Amino acid sequence: MANISIVTLGVDDLTASTAFYTAMGWRNTTASQDSVSFLQGDSIVLGLYGRAALAEDAGVDNTSSGFRGSSIAVNLESEAAVDAYFERAVSNGASPVKKPEKVFWGGYSGYFGDFDGHLWEVAFNPFFSGDTATGQLKLEPLIS
Amino acid sequence: MANISIVTLGVDDLTASTAFYTAMGWRNTTASQDSVSFLQGDSIVLGLYGRAALAEDAGVDNTSSGFRGSSIAVNLESEAAVDAYFERAVSNGASPVKKPEKVFWGGYSGYFGDFDGHLWEVAFNPFFSGDTATGQLKLEPLIS
Repeated sequence: MANISIVTLGVDDLTASTAFYTAMGWRNTTASQDSVSFLQGDSIVLGLYGRAALAEDAGVDNTSSGFRGSSIAVNLESEAAVDAYFERAVSNGASPVKKPEKVFWGGYSGYFGDFDGHLWEVAFNPFFSGDTATGQLKLEPLIS
Repeated sequence: MANISIVTLGVDDLTASTAFYTAMGWRNTTASQDSVSFLQGDSIVLGLYGRAALAEDAGVDNTSSGFRGSSIAVNLESEAAVDAYFERAVSNGASPVKKPEKVFWGGYSGYFGDFDGHLWEVAFNPFFSGDTATGQLKLEPLIS
């Protein structure tokens, strides 16, 4: 087994961030509570949790600045689908970090930041295969 | 559609990080190249990419410090499974940030950091349902 069950994002305003992600199609669940939202996606759960509480939960200092060192990608089936998803995010209040454009690796990609600066890439990659209805990729294993 | 296709982690040593995650069960794929690894999991792809290159790709400054403001969770079927997964990560070189223990919300959870400080939570949550073979959660939608 190798998988990710939940990606948890630390947020400042849980109500606003929950509204943003449900507007983006994530489904709120009965597991959500006053201090945490668990949103069901097609094959993963998105957790939203107070940033300070998340740091405390892991026992690390809640101090940071700048680039987070990671990003989350949504892969879609066409350039038009990327544009539409990106516009939907921005119209719901996300920050347009990098407008979708053709990129050097032969695909089409943009980045937006959510209300707390978490980076989402929206991409069309013509070389990747998967389930376009869910965005779930199935890449070919290396034979080693 | 609401989903995450790829979680990409910025790393300093791509070879070492790729070896760590394949030792943790992720399967390397033919999509990997010299500068990037794409590792297939049961229902998501893990990307490993040079931290500076990832920042440049998004057009943001590659400067940061401290808490990243997010975490990735693997949900397992028992406390024993959490202990075993945590020990496996540490024996492959991960940093034990918080040893698995019973937590206030009624479950059992620990945190480790990968070679670049990306936080992984390993958890048993008796209130969550899903597929224990893949760690994929299926939470009950809120009726709204």
